[in-house]
Amino acid sequence: MSFLRNVKGFKSVTLQPAHILVLGFMGLIFIGTCLFMIPAATRDRHHLSLIDALFEATSAVCVTGLAVVDTGTTFTLFGQIILLILIQLGGWGFITSGILMFIILGKKIGLKQRLLLQESLNTFSLQGIIKLVQRVIIITLIVEAIGAIVLSIRWSQEMGWGRAIYYGIFHSISAFNNAGFGLEADSLSKWVGDPTVNIVITALLILGGIGFYVVADVFEKRNFRKLSLHTKVTLFFTLVLNVFSTVIIFGLEYNNPATLGGLGLSDKWWAAYFQGVVPRTAGFNSIDIGQMTLSSQVYMMGLMFIGAASGSTAGGIKVTTFALLLLALAAVITNREDINIFQRRVPASLVSRALSIAVSGVIFIFVIFFLLTITEKGAEMSEIAFETVSAFGTVGMSAGLTMDLSPIGKILITVMMFIGRLGPLTMAFALAIHSKKKAKIRYAEEKILLG
Amino acid sequence: MSFLRNVKGFKSVTLQPAHILVLGFMGLIFIGTCLFMIPAATRDRHHLSLIDALFEATSAVCVTGLAVVDTGTTFTLFGQIILLILIQLGGWGFITSGILMFIILGKKIGLKQRLLLQESLNTFSLQGIIKLVQRVIIITLIVEAIGAIVLSIRWSQEMGWGRAIYYGIFHSISAFNNAGFGLEADSLSKWVGDPTVNIVITALLILGGIGFYVVADVFEKRNFRKLSLHTKVTLFFTLVLNVFSTVIIFGLEYNNPATLGGLGLSDKWWAAYFQGVVPRTAGFNSIDIGQMTLSSQVYMMGLMFIGAASGSTAGGIKVTTFALLLLALAAVITNREDINIFQRRVPASLVSRALSIAVSGVIFIFVIFFLLTITEKGAEMSEIAFETVSAFGTVGMSAGLTMDLSPIGKILITVMMFIGRLGPLTMAFALAIHSKKKAKIRYAEEKILLG
Ligand SMILES: [K+]
Ligand SMILES: [K+]
Repeated sequence: MSFLRNVKGFKSVTLQPAHILVLGFMGLIFIGTCLFMIPAATRDRHHLSLIDALFEATSAVCVTGLAVVDTGTTFTLFGQIILLILIQLGGWGFITSGILMFIILGKKIGLKQRLLLQESLNTFSLQGIIKLVQRVIIITLIVEAIGAIVLSIRWSQEMGWGRAIYYGIFHSISAFNNAGFGLEADSLSKWVGDPTVNIVITALLILGGIGFYVVADVFEKRNFRKLSLHTKVTLFFTLVLNVFSTVIIFGLEYNNPATLGGLGLSDKWWAAYFQGVVPRTAGFNSIDIGQMTLSSQVYMMGLMFIGAASGSTAGGIKVTTFALLLLALAAVITNREDINIFQRRVPASLVSRALSIAVSGVIFIFVIFFLLTITEKGAEMSEIAFETVSAFGTVGMSAGLTMDLSPIGKILITVMMFIGRLGPLTMAFALAIHSKKKAKIRYAEEKILLG
Repeated sequence: MSFLRNVKGFKSVTLQPAHILVLGFMGLIFIGTCLFMIPAATRDRHHLSLIDALFEATSAVCVTGLAVVDTGTTFTLFGQIILLILIQLGGWGFITSGILMFIILGKKIGLKQRLLLQESLNTFSLQGIIKLVQRVIIITLIVEAIGAIVLSIRWSQEMGWGRAIYYGIFHSISAFNNAGFGLEADSLSKWVGDPTVNIVITALLILGGIGFYVVADVFEKRNFRKLSLHTKVTLFFTLVLNVFSTVIIFGLEYNNPATLGGLGLSDKWWAAYFQGVVPRTAGFNSIDIGQMTLSSQVYMMGLMFIGAASGSTAGGIKVTTFALLLLALAAVITNREDINIFQRRVPASLVSRALSIAVSGVIFIFVIFFLLTITEKGAEMSEIAFETVSAFGTVGMSAGLTMDLSPIGKILITVMMFIGRLGPLTMAFALAIHSKKKAKIRYAEEKILLG
């Protein structure tokens, strides 16, 4: 309650919280763009144009991982460190602001989200927020350090220690923040069947992708039955999606000579697992996405649209939103009025919100996709669709179009990454015209026929 | 009220109304399939396989117009008349059942749709329904007769009277029911710049597509201000979409040598108008769809997804549903709580319903589309996507895939046409398990974080 009173104070300020958030990230992107344009950031003759620098900065801050230039060969060490810092600041910003947005936006969109936070974060106050940010930073650094150490040891077997440590740090930060930037042109394809790389990278990105709230909840309760419903739903659907996706990718690519076809059975499973887990936000790849079957690409587009958990660095509609859509559909088919899961009833108002998020996501994707078909003449529909959904989900996988994008195409994908990262509803709200005057006339209600 | 009491009586019957509807149309499709397999229905050596006959019968009954065989050269006159009868019975069935479904389903999906009908159709009783059916049949026959006469006169200029009259009748019935079946292999491409054919065909399909309720409302009130909100919204958005789409198609295809490029300015506008109007359910074409730009195809997929009006023969999510989604988005952006249009407020419950329809539509399309990418190896993503959305919208336009579909692909498109025609929500409801026992336990409510 005390926290909410503090938050309410924001209302008297001219800038709305959603505006502050949007402007904050825009500022970070602006600084990143300027830094990327400094000659010292890029190697000889790789000077970035304004549009490319903007694209790369947005991709880093929005932890997307789409790249119009090859990260490893274009950027100097200085440029790569700027990239890492932007990823980390972006990641922290989204984790903390993600949690805060639930509170601040809640009331505005009129869905009693405020009450939700009042319940689940009722121990919070302004000091609580500062503590939260501290905890997010400390946990992040600990997890990233562990990941970096294990990866460095693994990579020291095939490269010098200096390079192995740098590779370890870079990939650990990139993975935990679900940024998906790599240092090799073919991402992690060199280690397609390597257990250490597969396990560490996916562990980092799953941990980053389930969101800080879930991690904290599990850490505190240590008992599945005591976990909050949000945590249970996130964990359950993350598990189900990852297992299901591994099997689907394995089946669809089994005979594809350009991907799994040439690999041994064990490597096949590792690659299928990796490629089944990454599309929900991470953006690395261990096989060539552009060579995968159309079916796999379409399936991965579905995963990219879903994304990972709320309050994480993930884009997309989020896994809880997807879960609620499935549960709502199941409720219709089983002719139930209540939407139940884990012996709890989900309020109907949340279903409306889930539907709104999904529909606004589809609309944003459709519009950007349509515009890209105009600007990217000659590109395949599947390439354009994949690129658009990848940007929306801030995933960063590409079927190969990114580096061939036209200047306007780059701007469209930049916009899509930004929308995808902030969420379509937040974006719509940030664009909202906040007129002081309330509508005085309330019209009579009348219904129309639908469907 | 008296009508609603009659409808409630259905509940004591074991079969639910949605089941009766689904079974009724299935029965009609079954009869059509059998009739198409009679040797007399097809010309020598064109005997239809079971899957092809099922596909054609479903396409006719669901007034879709997708065809795995060339209608003009495959079917005998007897076969073509069966096709016409299936289209007309399907059309009548959907118009009347469409109106009834609003009433019967309304309560089930718990969105107070029942109240809506109580208001808008409050003069209805069981006798009222019989009268409604009679009126639908009479108005249909009058409009189709006028269309057939004008078209026959026009076509008599270039073919014998016997053929011209048959062409007139066939295309008039096909257009008014928004079936989209034609007798020429290239649909209406021969008359791409012909004012009479363009005007009569589009007039018939717009009239058929705005739905019987709207036609009756306009006919009775004859004053825009007195019209029901449903009628106003349908008319307004039909007009806006048609004008907007004409301009978009004109712009996107202006320089395309395979479509508008080679035509004179006047023919360009006629073709753009025709191709802008048909995708929302009609399925004719006057230029080669497969040769249109990817942008136009994507734009038309959007139109096909939207469809025409509720209570018409159209598929898709319907134009009022689309209108409500736009209005809801506008309400978020302008920070309003009420959703107003034409000085009326639309109840929030209808927005939830609109969102549900859109989301279930997207899910159905995604699943069928994904399965088709597996069965139709080698086909382009754009062809498969176009075919799927065309079936969902019961539009019947094709980018060229229909006749090359694999047997399983044909079955998938058959299923999609059926789902698209009955509506995703109706379909989900028809599949519902109607257990007698009510859930005894009601769980405690708990919220989760979304987006
Ligand atoms: K990413
Ligand atoms: K049609």
